[in-house]
Amino acid sequence: MAEEALNAMEGYKVIIIGGGPAGLTAGLYTSRAYLQTILLEAMIPSGQAYMAETIENYPGFPDGISGRELIERFTQQAKKFGLDILQFTKVDKIELAGEKKMVTAGGKKFSASALIIASGAKWNTLGAAGEEEFTGKGISYCATCDGAFFKDQEVAVVGGGDTAVEDALYLSRVARKVFLIHRRDELRAQKILQSKALGDPKIEFIWNTVVRKIKGQGVVKTLVLENVKDSRQRELAVGGVFIAIGQKPNVDFASGLVEMNEQGYIITDQNCATSVAGIFAAGDVRSKGLRQIATAVGDGALAASAAEKYIEVQETR
Amino acid sequence: MAEEALNAMEGYKVIIIGGGPAGLTAGLYTSRAYLQTILLEAMIPSGQAYMAETIENYPGFPDGISGRELIERFTQQAKKFGLDILQFTKVDKIELAGEKKMVTAGGKKFSASALIIASGAKWNTLGAAGEEEFTGKGISYCATCDGAFFKDQEVAVVGGGDTAVEDALYLSRVARKVFLIHRRDELRAQKILQSKALGDPKIEFIWNTVVRKIKGQGVVKTLVLENVKDSRQRELAVGGVFIAIGQKPNVDFASGLVEMNEQGYIITDQNCATSVAGIFAAGDVRSKGLRQIATAVGDGALAASAAEKYIEVQETR
Repeated sequence: MAEEALNAMEGYKVIIIGGGPAGLTAGLYTSRAYLQTILLEAMIPSGQAYMAETIENYPGFPDGISGRELIERFTQQAKKFGLDILQFTKVDKIELAGEKKMVTAGGKKFSASALIIASGAKWNTLGAAGEEEFTGKGISYCATCDGAFFKDQEVAVVGGGDTAVEDALYLSRVARKVFLIHRRDELRAQKILQSKALGDPKIEFIWNTVVRKIKGQGVVKTLVLENVKDSRQRELAVGGVFIAIGQKPNVDFASGLVEMNEQGYIITDQNCATSVAGIFAAGDVRSKGLRQIATAVGDGALAASAAEKYIEVQETR
Repeated sequence: MAEEALNAMEGYKVIIIGGGPAGLTAGLYTSRAYLQTILLEAMIPSGQAYMAETIENYPGFPDGISGRELIERFTQQAKKFGLDILQFTKVDKIELAGEKKMVTAGGKKFSASALIIASGAKWNTLGAAGEEEFTGKGISYCATCDGAFFKDQEVAVVGGGDTAVEDALYLSRVARKVFLIHRRDELRAQKILQSKALGDPKIEFIWNTVVRKIKGQGVVKTLVLENVKDSRQRELAVGGVFIAIGQKPNVDFASGLVEMNEQGYIITDQNCATSVAGIFAAGDVRSKGLRQIATAVGDGALAASAAEKYIEVQETR
């Protein structure tokens, strides 16, 4: 982007925060609708999907595609229609100035009629040794995404909430055996899910236990487990481990402005509109039931279309 | 599919009705989650997108892709994970037998725990001469899909409701000039959209007028218009025409079973659940704000995930 354009920070109709699948799709749609749009991204266009070695469940790629290639394609497509992307530009604050939305990022201020927040979420990590090294190499944070890669293997799930138990149930259809490792001696998950998991012969529960270390050679081979009651350690051989201890939305910059749920996810209606007129949320940052690339692109298109209609009406008044 | 499998019509966990982007995505997800699924399609896997010569706004294809190739990719991908597709199998009726969902189609009965309706919708047509011939060759039923192809051209929109006026506003950003052709002398669209369109110097209204004929050579060149007051005809040269007179969901088989809105679209919650437990709706057949391939795949993934959770819980009781 040319330096002149950078200084014309008021010329935009739409600002998008976040360059993952939701933000890039929103940018493709608003740009293709001839609404001048800038996308602000703290790193490079990526999102959680970027690190995935193979994505099998984004429709359109029967042989699978790497997260990196998919995001590069999304980026190229959005740019083709004129989307301005400003990378390495972390958003510090958003605020309202009348009906304008003001965004402070990378030491500059940007303003536009509509704002789409697509800043994503981050999986919570165990903090176990080896966790970073083996992420994507046997460690996954999403059973719906990666479960199918572990057909007939022995796998572990770490956690005790709804997601952990749902992941264990999902994996019990795919894998040969599932160990559910939980730091307490009872689950927090809904009773009905608990009954199902406790009655599933393929699921074995390992209570009062935490994962201290993840070991392997290229891919995960064993977990070093520690019993929290007596501190005794043991090793468990697995082909993969699913860490299901929640995630955190990236929303610090939006605190106090748009309505969020208890976990900090932004609450929207079915058209991705937040509690503030002209601010929309799309993708993992939204309070919703499923976080996938497929649902992120749906959100991106919806938020863009809603932003477009908002701008039409707002400019008429 | 082998003949034996056809007779084992009770072995399925999930039945999907409709092989467009929503149904195929749902099938990809449920199959990949090891839930035995059959997809029933009246024709071949297609959907309204199938006829599109170039799709530019489904993320992942920077150079665009034909509807046909995209749907073939969706189909191949879903089949790879084990989805059974039964084509040329029109659904006549769905009903409940206790908690089982029963589907009558192609002279056979199918039953499963969960049912995903993804049967789509059909655009209403004008019934003008030449309409079928030039569909996709200058005639479009979706400005968000195809507007960008008409940059700096003169185009027409036919209709007088919200969609027609929104389409005209969308196109006024893209095209050089937009004619809005309406059979009455006033619009049905929301007042605020009307004001915006009436004040837009690029939009010219042609009142009390219908399109009798669409003429061209390979692509659309002129519209034969008829004034409904005095029956006088005239020709209008355009590069494209957007027909925005509504669409009808394909839901005859579901009448009286699931809750629908006034237009017949199936009402769902944010997770694609209908008013009947275990029946989900995805894609254009749903009551929603935007109908795109991007939103259809989002719906398909959501409906599949919701069906999976429904089956988990239902089988426990």
